[in-house]
Amino acid sequence: MTTNEFQVTGMTCGHCEMSIREEVAEVPGVEDIQVSAQTGVLLVTGSDSLDDAQILAAVTEAGYSAVRKA
Amino acid sequence: MTTNEFQVTGMTCGHCEMSIREEVAEVPGVEDIQVSAQTGVLLVTGSDSLDDAQILAAVTEAGYSAVRKA
Repeated sequence: MTTNEFQVTGMTCGHCEMSIREEVAEVPGVEDIQVSAQTGVLLVTGSDSLDDAQILAAVTEAGYSAVRKA
Repeated sequence: MTTNEFQVTGMTCGHCEMSIREEVAEVPGVEDIQVSAQTGVLLVTGSDSLDDAQILAAVTEAGYSAVRKA
């Protein structure tokens, strides 16, 4: 199990959080999602083989942009 | 046909606009809705018997507050 942290740009409200949550939840291996419009932080927990690229693509699909935090 | 203007507080993005649009559309007599998160302006067009109280209640139901503009 691993948790990866991303910084998301462009969220303004709870609807934005929900849009990202819905898309990221579709990524294989994802088991938990924490997302805050206020801080822009997205925490994705899942299998060790969680694919950053798929998570970033899901965020893009929701209409936002993100970068992986160190 | 009449158009009533409301000032809405709390919208931040297109999702917010859509939430309000969905609720206001359910008010009897409403035929057109213009809403802008950027300005907070909500324009509701419909029958002459359009009920301000129902529109304000719909905005509240969506999670925002509004006042009728003169």
